[in-house]
Amino acid sequence: MTTAAPAEAEALRARLSRLDTAALSDAMDSLRTPPCVLPGIATRTPGTIACGPAFTVRYRAVDDDTTFHNAANYIDDVPAGSVVVVDNGGSRTCTNWGSLLSSVALHRGISGTVVHGSVRDVKESRAAGYPLFSTDVTMVSGKNRVVLDRTGAEIDIAGTPVRPGDWVFADDNGALRIPADLVEEVVRRAEAVERTESRIREAALGGDRLDEARARFGYARPWEDGGDHDDR
Amino acid sequence: MTTAAPAEAEALRARLSRLDTAALSDAMDSLRTPPCVLPGIATRTPGTIACGPAFTVRYRAVDDDTTFHNAANYIDDVPAGSVVVVDNGGSRTCTNWGSLLSSVALHRGISGTVVHGSVRDVKESRAAGYPLFSTDVTMVSGKNRVVLDRTGAEIDIAGTPVRPGDWVFADDNGALRIPADLVEEVVRRAEAVERTESRIREAALGGDRLDEARARFGYARPWEDGGDHDDR
Amino acid sequence: MTTAAPAEAEALRARLSRLDTAALSDAMDSLRTPPCVLPGIATRTPGTIACGPAFTVRYRAVDDDTTFHNAANYIDDVPAGSVVVVDNGGSRTCTNWGSLLSSVALHRGISGTVVHGSVRDVKESRAAGYPLFSTDVTMVSGKNRVVLDRTGAEIDIAGTPVRPGDWVFADDNGALRIPADLVEEVVRRAEAVERTESRIREAALGGDRLDEARARFGYARPWEDGGDHDDR
Repeated sequence: MTTAAPAEAEALRARLSRLDTAALSDAMDSLRTPPCVLPGIATRTPGTIACGPAFTVRYRAVDDDTTFHNAANYIDDVPAGSVVVVDNGGSRTCTNWGSLLSSVALHRGISGTVVHGSVRDVKESRAAGYPLFSTDVTMVSGKNRVVLDRTGAEIDIAGTPVRPGDWVFADDNGALRIPADLVEEVVRRAEAVERTESRIREAALGGDRLDEARARFGYARPWEDGGDHDDR
Repeated sequence: MTTAAPAEAEALRARLSRLDTAALSDAMDSLRTPPCVLPGIATRTPGTIACGPAFTVRYRAVDDDTTFHNAANYIDDVPAGSVVVVDNGGSRTCTNWGSLLSSVALHRGISGTVVHGSVRDVKESRAAGYPLFSTDVTMVSGKNRVVLDRTGAEIDIAGTPVRPGDWVFADDNGALRIPADLVEEVVRRAEAVERTESRIREAALGGDRLDEARARFGYARPWEDGGDHDDR
Repeated sequence: MTTAAPAEAEALRARLSRLDTAALSDAMDSLRTPPCVLPGIATRTPGTIACGPAFTVRYRAVDDDTTFHNAANYIDDVPAGSVVVVDNGGSRTCTNWGSLLSSVALHRGISGTVVHGSVRDVKESRAAGYPLFSTDVTMVSGKNRVVLDRTGAEIDIAGTPVRPGDWVFADDNGALRIPADLVEEVVRRAEAVERTESRIREAALGGDRLDEARARFGYARPWEDGGDHDDR
């Protein structure tokens, strides 16, 4: 769990929202953290980002197909600002998310949804601008195929664990998690990465060779916000 | 074969065209029909739908590569309003559809095309607004790689049979078939599903909890258009 | 290496740029060349094309993870008009291309980039209109995961060789290479294919059956620009 107070959490979210998954992943690389990418997740609403503490949801296969199983009801309990992260084992055969959930999530101020599995109604979510990310798309309901196992537990997304309180960030490059205890340092380093890259870009577009600009602005260690130096 | 007369078929198509694959799939689930999704088919012209009786086309690999094989010619015989469903075994290595066929299909009033395999010229089909759905995209012609096996036969799309006369519906969620003898009941139930979901959405956006709205409007059996009730 | 002088190369590029991968692939089929498609490469900037002589770049996995490895620096040496073709073994786990490289490539007049592997910052490349093609998208840097092996060597893209001097063309249908010694004949034939298809399209939209229009305009041998004939 992040220990940040609400105001601090909001300040952190504001800083995160100006970053992207590329800078955040580079910052985590510099800290030699374990892999943080949620593999195989792609945007369904290009140009949007999801950014917030993870609200985890796990489904399991129905083992009794003689009984009717209701749709899962957890959305009313998701805190505003969270990213809903759904573990349905990467399923391509049934969905756990559709337009009704996107509408309610937008209404409740939820930041976005990442599904390790399939979603439906992508057209409607795109029209509403709801940040939706998934492994695949199908129209087949999860109802009577999978049931809610639990919420608020650690889940595993194709080898990457996501724990409640971890931050999740998703954009057009994919989705990643940031361990709760690292998020402040990761943001600080990612901001430095962005500054370093801006300096290099400006120099290269101003006529410098890229290799020289990279050396001059310390691209080998871009999170060390040192300005003009040479590390060749 | 659907036994509906043309005017009835047109009325049915008009009703179907206001639905989507999600509601249709839910309606078929409620009837406990066999799986109806055509697996792995994705839209190449986002925002369009294909809806109509299936005109089936099957290709087979060329076993004699010393002879020149012409392109398949069947498009002149496809009835207006049909959906062309092409079985090329899910091939990612050659296409069976391109811009010339999209132009002719549009001109002839064909409703759309679903290819279990690859297509090309997606840019042109998108610009023309032709509803095109496929497993993949490549530029390599099927000419001299595959030949027309037959049209009008039952085909198998990754485990799902499609018979002439079955209806096919495809949208941004993917493609499905509706067995000819179920289509009227499926449409009736899908319309009820849509009405139930609208009531739930309205209640949830009006301030109700989603779980309560679902219970009140019978989301457990959304195709039973019963209005206000409680099934918890 | 193409032996064309710069002015001739520019004239060739101008002719190529009015074509597409479908016509070029058909022209190569008519010459019975080996397969020329670069398998599994998809556009990340829909509607753009890359067209030019290949500048080849090969990466290999880092075998020593105790040392810090710099980013590869080759972009300053890529001739204007080239297509950068990166062989990273089709990796889905790390990238070799991002927005900084797209900016510099645009600035230097590079025609586009094809990555057999993953790229990041697709949103920025799309906004800049840079022609970018790849196997997949992720946000994880290649830094310290892969290192530059060499540039200017023959590479292998999922079974298709690309040699320096080969031309590469990529569009919404995917990417292909045109062997250097065939490029002039391929362009000539592809232009004939386009003319034949235009005549057929015009006839079919004018009311002819497609099978008749194809027979009349020689669709069986569309690269033989013979005008009106009958080859049934």
